[in-house]
Amino acid sequence: MVDIATRVHNHNWKIDPIVRSLIDTDFYKLLMCQSIFRNKPDTTVAFSLINRSHSVRLADLIDEGELREQLDHVRGLSLSRGESTWLRGNTFYGKRQMFRPDFMEWFEQMRLPAYHLEKRDGQFELTFEGRWPEVMLWEIPALTVLMELRSRAVLKGMGKFELQILYARAMSRLWEKIERLRRIEGLKIADFGTRRRHGFLWQDWCVQAMQEGLGDAFTGTSNCRIAMKRDIEAIGTNAHELPMVYAALAESDAELAEAPYRVLADWHEEHDGNLRIILPDTYGTEGFLKRAPDWLSKWTGIRIDSGDPATGAEIAIRWWQERGEDPRNKLVIFSDGLDVEKIEELHARFAGRVKVSFGWGTMLTNDFRGLAGDRLAPFSLVCKAISANGRPTVKLSDNPNKAMGPADEVARYKRVFGVGDQAAQEVVV
Amino acid sequence: MVDIATRVHNHNWKIDPIVRSLIDTDFYKLLMCQSIFRNKPDTTVAFSLINRSHSVRLADLIDEGELREQLDHVRGLSLSRGESTWLRGNTFYGKRQMFRPDFMEWFEQMRLPAYHLEKRDGQFELTFEGRWPEVMLWEIPALTVLMELRSRAVLKGMGKFELQILYARAMSRLWEKIERLRRIEGLKIADFGTRRRHGFLWQDWCVQAMQEGLGDAFTGTSNCRIAMKRDIEAIGTNAHELPMVYAALAESDAELAEAPYRVLADWHEEHDGNLRIILPDTYGTEGFLKRAPDWLSKWTGIRIDSGDPATGAEIAIRWWQERGEDPRNKLVIFSDGLDVEKIEELHARFAGRVKVSFGWGTMLTNDFRGLAGDRLAPFSLVCKAISANGRPTVKLSDNPNKAMGPADEVARYKRVFGVGDQAAQEVVV
Repeated sequence: MVDIATRVHNHNWKIDPIVRSLIDTDFYKLLMCQSIFRNKPDTTVAFSLINRSHSVRLADLIDEGELREQLDHVRGLSLSRGESTWLRGNTFYGKRQMFRPDFMEWFEQMRLPAYHLEKRDGQFELTFEGRWPEVMLWEIPALTVLMELRSRAVLKGMGKFELQILYARAMSRLWEKIERLRRIEGLKIADFGTRRRHGFLWQDWCVQAMQEGLGDAFTGTSNCRIAMKRDIEAIGTNAHELPMVYAALAESDAELAEAPYRVLADWHEEHDGNLRIILPDTYGTEGFLKRAPDWLSKWTGIRIDSGDPATGAEIAIRWWQERGEDPRNKLVIFSDGLDVEKIEELHARFAGRVKVSFGWGTMLTNDFRGLAGDRLAPFSLVCKAISANGRPTVKLSDNPNKAMGPADEVARYKRVFGVGDQAAQEVVV
Repeated sequence: MVDIATRVHNHNWKIDPIVRSLIDTDFYKLLMCQSIFRNKPDTTVAFSLINRSHSVRLADLIDEGELREQLDHVRGLSLSRGESTWLRGNTFYGKRQMFRPDFMEWFEQMRLPAYHLEKRDGQFELTFEGRWPEVMLWEIPALTVLMELRSRAVLKGMGKFELQILYARAMSRLWEKIERLRRIEGLKIADFGTRRRHGFLWQDWCVQAMQEGLGDAFTGTSNCRIAMKRDIEAIGTNAHELPMVYAALAESDAELAEAPYRVLADWHEEHDGNLRIILPDTYGTEGFLKRAPDWLSKWTGIRIDSGDPATGAEIAIRWWQERGEDPRNKLVIFSDGLDVEKIEELHARFAGRVKVSFGWGTMLTNDFRGLAGDRLAPFSLVCKAISANGRPTVKLSDNPNKAMGPADEVARYKRVFGVGDQAAQEVVV
């Protein structure tokens, strides 16, 4: 059993590097990477760190030298033999050889490309540029390094005893959440908390707590390294970067309008079953579903990742009904801004009407609110594709507070995708 | 930093014996032992374990062989060189050489005498008989062995993870209590929780939590071993066994009526300052104070250990006033059935009227209520002198539920000490 408080107190990045492995990343990054490796290997992209929580002045908290050491350490990582064996030999979503030999050969020799780091206005400008399949693998390590360096910066000032109390409280808090979740009959929930975790050891502990406390209701973790270590399911499908980059590559408005479906057509070719999950919100859920080709309504389910989640699920249910599908056979995965109350509420409202599932992120792996004042409270850090082959990417989302891209391009996308007024939701994490 | 959950999980009595040292005992036992060694060395006494919580069937929970191993281990203990040095060289209550050389020489060669153990009706009958100064030193080890074997019996059935959550919760709970106590201005509080502790490591942790959380408001611990280890004050004065044995030795009713004052006269000769604390409730506080000699009203303070504590303190205040003493110069130590609320309440009522101090026991070192169902809830175990030179001892207390002794003797004591009706208080711990 790891005594987290002691380890954190004694931590030294040389023995406790933040990122220990190339598969200390979300499973869907690897699935998408393989898809990109197959379909768009030569696309050049830029990813950039974006701290939506301006009040958290990362560059004032974190030493630039330490950040560089951690990032350099990540660049030195390569897939270990055991990790390769696990990816090649494991069954994911009931399927063997999810990762094809050509992809695995490439992945085994892959090293993460260079990064570009500057300080500006109390924030770090951290960008990555290069071939899409490589650059995109920076997203999660970049986030976890920044998140954990911030935690460590705050923890550094605390005594051994304070640390022990801190973790005792965080453990008790999570356990109380789990005890509430345990009472939800038919619950299905997975850990999606890698990117916003307090730290690696803490996420690993949270996953064990979920395993122990929820049994079969806990369906797995998005983190491959932890899935491997704890012998549980690796969970995930696809994310916004695919439609964002496909859209940026479009040569005309007509191609742009088709781009999100093009992504899913490529995916359709590659995957079936529970991997066929629609992420509809990149350019507005309502319009996306209205114009969707019929084969999409046959997909297994939908992931609701922005906007009011109940509204999103109702839209999906109506859409399936209109397309002659029985929503009770469809899966709705909620993955945005969840905590126990929201999970209880959504489960109560949708269980029985659809198959409900939850991807629980920040409030699972980083709920330290109030435990060191607000100095350890989670904050909203993302690492996104900002351009592809030199053209800016755009995200509209179902929440205008999550939109990104240059104003003129945002206006163009809104026109092309027919997005009107949207209800703004506060982005906490 | 000790990871208690891991240690408990791996515990093995040979490396984690329950009693590690002869000074893993309350400081007042050593003070009383020296007083007995000087004044009544040849008295023969019997001590017996009494479990007031009949529903906790110790002999069903605890293996007799394990109990014998632990008790035999205690019998093998002798004062270590470092412990002897600490007792001889330390300053207690501002006084050097509290323990006289002749007592220390005797203590260094002392081994605990034989025990007698039987099982009856799901309980252990555990008795000790012999010379008073030796037998009396069994009290605390006997209690801590039984308390911790009961904890271990419950913990044995729990997984590593469950244990971690258990201790995380108990730690969070104590820390919340400490945070409440921190808000009481002028608080003075000590650990009196050795005898009812969940376990040794846990008490040690609780003491560190009090140190860290309360600073100077935490005045010390009654546990000598922990006081030595953590370099803090050892706290305590005297207890009921002195008047109980002195009373049993009385040859007449007149001598009996004088016995409690005789105890304090011997104590008066030996100690001054903060060690002159009256424990008035053995045969009823009210009568004891009414008939007390004037020199007793000059003593530093009073310890309230049974009955309603506010009533006890009001009686003491009135008594000092009647004897022309200013209560504001007097110390009242509350030491019975305390938890945070009671401490807040008593402090609010008496601070400023007297000097207030608290000896916090069971709810400091053994509050596991509800954390493993009620299987770890504290219970009321005592180890008392039941006879002296072949005569039964009697205790009346300010709470008839704490009274002990044969019925005819209780009646005689009530008559001699003029004790009438008493309000019964539930004895939880």
